[in-house]
Amino acid sequence: MSIRDHVCLMKEISPVVASMSVDVRNAALRSVAAALSSHREEIFAANREDLERAEQSGIADSVKKRLRFDDHKLADCLAGIDSLLSLPDPAGRVTLRRELDEGLVLERVSVPIGVIGIIFEARPDALVQISCLCIKSGNCAVLKGGRETASTNKVLFDLIYEAALSAGIPEGSLLQASGHSEIDELLECDDCVDLLIPRGSNAFVRYIMDHTKIPVMGHSDGICHTYVDKSADPDLAIRVLTDAKTQYTAACNATETLLVHRDIADTFLPAAAAQLAQNGVRLRGTEEAARILQQASQSNDGCGSAQTEAHCKEAGGSVNSPLISADDLMGEDDFRKEYLDLVLSVKLVGSVEEAAAHINRFGSHHTDCIITKDDAAAQTFMTLVDSAGVYRNCSTRFADGFRYGFGAEVGISTGKLHARGPVGLEGLMTYKYRLHGNGQIVADYASGKSSFHFRDLL
Amino acid sequence: MSIRDHVCLMKEISPVVASMSVDVRNAALRSVAAALSSHREEIFAANREDLERAEQSGIADSVKKRLRFDDHKLADCLAGIDSLLSLPDPAGRVTLRRELDEGLVLERVSVPIGVIGIIFEARPDALVQISCLCIKSGNCAVLKGGRETASTNKVLFDLIYEAALSAGIPEGSLLQASGHSEIDELLECDDCVDLLIPRGSNAFVRYIMDHTKIPVMGHSDGICHTYVDKSADPDLAIRVLTDAKTQYTAACNATETLLVHRDIADTFLPAAAAQLAQNGVRLRGTEEAARILQQASQSNDGCGSAQTEAHCKEAGGSVNSPLISADDLMGEDDFRKEYLDLVLSVKLVGSVEEAAAHINRFGSHHTDCIITKDDAAAQTFMTLVDSAGVYRNCSTRFADGFRYGFGAEVGISTGKLHARGPVGLEGLMTYKYRLHGNGQIVADYASGKSSFHFRDLL
Repeated sequence: MSIRDHVCLMKEISPVVASMSVDVRNAALRSVAAALSSHREEIFAANREDLERAEQSGIADSVKKRLRFDDHKLADCLAGIDSLLSLPDPAGRVTLRRELDEGLVLERVSVPIGVIGIIFEARPDALVQISCLCIKSGNCAVLKGGRETASTNKVLFDLIYEAALSAGIPEGSLLQASGHSEIDELLECDDCVDLLIPRGSNAFVRYIMDHTKIPVMGHSDGICHTYVDKSADPDLAIRVLTDAKTQYTAACNATETLLVHRDIADTFLPAAAAQLAQNGVRLRGTEEAARILQQASQSNDGCGSAQTEAHCKEAGGSVNSPLISADDLMGEDDFRKEYLDLVLSVKLVGSVEEAAAHINRFGSHHTDCIITKDDAAAQTFMTLVDSAGVYRNCSTRFADGFRYGFGAEVGISTGKLHARGPVGLEGLMTYKYRLHGNGQIVADYASGKSSFHFRDLL
Repeated sequence: MSIRDHVCLMKEISPVVASMSVDVRNAALRSVAAALSSHREEIFAANREDLERAEQSGIADSVKKRLRFDDHKLADCLAGIDSLLSLPDPAGRVTLRRELDEGLVLERVSVPIGVIGIIFEARPDALVQISCLCIKSGNCAVLKGGRETASTNKVLFDLIYEAALSAGIPEGSLLQASGHSEIDELLECDDCVDLLIPRGSNAFVRYIMDHTKIPVMGHSDGICHTYVDKSADPDLAIRVLTDAKTQYTAACNATETLLVHRDIADTFLPAAAAQLAQNGVRLRGTEEAARILQQASQSNDGCGSAQTEAHCKEAGGSVNSPLISADDLMGEDDFRKEYLDLVLSVKLVGSVEEAAAHINRFGSHHTDCIITKDDAAAQTFMTLVDSAGVYRNCSTRFADGFRYGFGAEVGISTGKLHARGPVGLEGLMTYKYRLHGNGQIVADYASGKSSFHFRDLL
């Protein structure tokens, strides 16, 4: 059967899948967890094949880390399933119940979206998370993972699918696409697929968006900012900034740009730079930022304020603070850069409003943070910054479905429609309106014989 | 200034517009209502110009009815503004508040989408509704109406914009595009426009979708069904069906296809056909449906059941019931037809499941109704039919923002993402996540030093 035939069939059965009770869906999740546990050696063996192939083709260590599926990753997956089991049923929630007139009652009720296509990177744990999110939410899903983990994916998918079937989930409701050409086939199925979620590089997500009429939910870039306000606690700022930049640089929620209020730049910037340098971070920035670091370095001190002295000591006492080299001077448009590496853009601003304007213009509407002790400044920042996540005094790295308590995520949306930020179960649901009557016709309301009274019953 | 320059500026000020208090937004609405009231003669004079031009170009009467803006339409617009004033602020609603850990609190709060482009048909009242929805919701908007009402639109827009400014809405937050070429300019502004809402013909909506990277919310077809179950009350069914088909045929929520359970077709179909014929409806249908009408006609009666006798009498006593002519016999694919006219497709089905399968396959996921006294059949239908509106025992014509109590609508979405069905204020909102911390870093949670406890505070 072609992908198209599979997917059309999936579209036909999707209302039946959507109507399965949450007991069946939870039973399927428990059955999946049991199957993964009891077949762990089989999974690990398949994963060793993938790793050996990767080794031979000389893949980078950072990538291999993502390919690996071991006891630790399995335990995370099982914990994720437990967490999904504990979450309430996302389907059948009545979010509006309104009597339009005597005996005419309108309800809005959450239902699964239907058929979802998810194309994801070479990470076996992603396959488990995504298929379990689809099972719990009552959606049908076509899954296409990265080819580097083809062997692991095959074993995992077969186990998950068999386990779901054994619990009563209808045949054909999950499908794994394995060939790369199948992506292009899938993109053509706009009459059968309700939503596509591509994960991966920006270029890849853009390719998908440009080559399909299926609605796409994805994220473009992760250009996140940390803005250190003039009223920031500098120690807290340096601690949060360091985490946001260095804790996991390859993540889309890592900070790429540091904005500093001009009033505190002379003292804060050299101290922060010293700490970042200790963590291997290279700084790029505007001439103004470079000059401040240069001056701090020339004064052979860079640690004017008592508050930041501790950090300077940590960074090697009062030696020169790190500089921004001539090659790393930045013009305006350079700030649209996602590094995913130990590199940080630096710019000074004169106000919280200017920081927000910079973020709205050069950011990617993902996650941005203000470090401040000033409630009014925080309020202004969180209102004016037009991003999925607006944070105060904590690391941008918190932008994540698990950390938000969603059990898991299928991705992070930087679009503003449907779902924004980390997308968990709720992002895989839509709603329908039910109207219950006993013979009402519109002509009676048009003529004035009847009239609406709109009484909310919830 | 080009449309692009205008829209880019709009994007920059949109966070400021979004942060205006609801008091300012309501004051703007009151100011708009006052301006429309006191300048009514000016508006009507401009509308007479449009109508004269339409007359000269020989536009159809049905279209002219839409172009007209008179005391009656103005009263409807003012009532709509009153209704918007009475609705609660759609912005700033906290829909999730969760303590992730001690001192780390996540909130999800509703915010305006930002910059919305709306391209709508030649109906001056639509311009008023749409701009008022945008003002109430805190969105910036680019409006492009049909050229047939250019004079009326100009006067209306200028009044609305001035009134909004006088109440404190920022300059540049509303823009009227007047030239047709400006639509193509607007379609290019995917970096500045957050959402496009095209209204009009299917071909037009499809053109917009195919020529922009801006997310589009629109409806394709309105192929709505009324399914008469075997347990239906035939009198109620005929009354509701007649309204759904004939009360306003040009609307997308008018019924285009009648499905009848085979067990009652012999009696129900001739009676329904007689009543529909009285209302000028031409029937098309399958051979099976045609045969039943033919047989009823030949028995020179068509009114076997006592229950439907009254309808047969109304339709001219026991004369021949209407037939389906040879030209109007339908094959499978003919059922994908939106008539927007006094024409109805007819097909028999053997079960509620078969009705649902037909609707999911040939319908447009807009609004579909079951007529039944059987609760179980209604439940099955409303679960299996994958449409924005699933109705029981009432006319499909109820699918409308006003009738749902939304105050107004910008359109009806047949897509499943973001908003489904009639789109009012809520459909013009998105949300952002706010995270309030006091120095939390992800490294502490990765190392196990800290852990999340996820406590919902709402």
